[in-house]
Amino acid sequence: MLPALPLPASLETAHGPVQVRRATPGDLPALARLLGDDPISAARGDSGDIADYRAALDAVLAAPGNDLLVAVDAGGTVVGTLQLTVIPGMARRGATRLLVEAVRVASTRRSSGIGGALMRWVMRDAALATGAGLVQLTSDAARTDAHRFYTRLGFADSHIGFKYTVGA
Amino acid sequence: MLPALPLPASLETAHGPVQVRRATPGDLPALARLLGDDPISAARGDSGDIADYRAALDAVLAAPGNDLLVAVDAGGTVVGTLQLTVIPGMARRGATRLLVEAVRVASTRRSSGIGGALMRWVMRDAALATGAGLVQLTSDAARTDAHRFYTRLGFADSHIGFKYTVGA
Repeated sequence: MLPALPLPASLETAHGPVQVRRATPGDLPALARLLGDDPISAARGDSGDIADYRAALDAVLAAPGNDLLVAVDAGGTVVGTLQLTVIPGMARRGATRLLVEAVRVASTRRSSGIGGALMRWVMRDAALATGAGLVQLTSDAARTDAHRFYTRLGFADSHIGFKYTVGA
Repeated sequence: MLPALPLPASLETAHGPVQVRRATPGDLPALARLLGDDPISAARGDSGDIADYRAALDAVLAAPGNDLLVAVDAGGTVVGTLQLTVIPGMARRGATRLLVEAVRVASTRRSSGIGGALMRWVMRDAALATGAGLVQLTSDAARTDAHRFYTRLGFADSHIGFKYTVGA
């Protein structure tokens, strides 16, 4: 958990307000659905089966330096999620990094401003609250729409992201 | 600290053995020197001034889920460093990630096998000890030699790394 995060937070989007709050074990079905609701993730094995995610959710919620957030619409439906990790570091004159992982918005709600509202909250409110000097994330090279989205928000596409699957 | 890491570790390189161990506050001057000993890092403000790094080193050493390692040659000189962060996560069926940050080898010792020995230890021993299913890192787009190095080690250059400097 990241106790410093100013949660819950109310964000405005062009299609109405969404609330950002910490995920709870009760969000497991909605989170599994979001993770499988994407062709690239599904190709990596994210099937939407909740059994795959139960232990992982407990581990994320228990891990110092980490928080798993959900965005909930006015009707109470979980429409987005992302994970934050605060990483103290030596490089860049001792900058603390805020790593964003597993950003997902429900396929039926994409392009409605939810992702932008979430990311602007991360870049401003969450970074300030955690003392981060750098916000970073990687995006699959195939997600060209996402790359334009992050660039518009002010991110620099300055790095190559390398992944190694252990035991593959 | 990551107590599960099998440290200290002795690694063989073509130019003799190096030992990997956890960094200590006494390594501050050597770490600051390594961070400034690189044109791309220097351009980001990594000057080698130890005052920049003292609080950061304390923070990294105190952070659960993080460890800062140094590689030491047979003469006792610190010739390399890297930071590891273990991140439990939901995506990829609940895979735990092992994030590698701030990999540096002394400029006088590059191409001597130290970086490769360190990274192979991370991909095998550190990943196994921490239960990681995925090892990940980003490398500045300008570091084309580093990209070949990571690809040869077995990493896929599958992602774009986005960075946002807070308040810039």
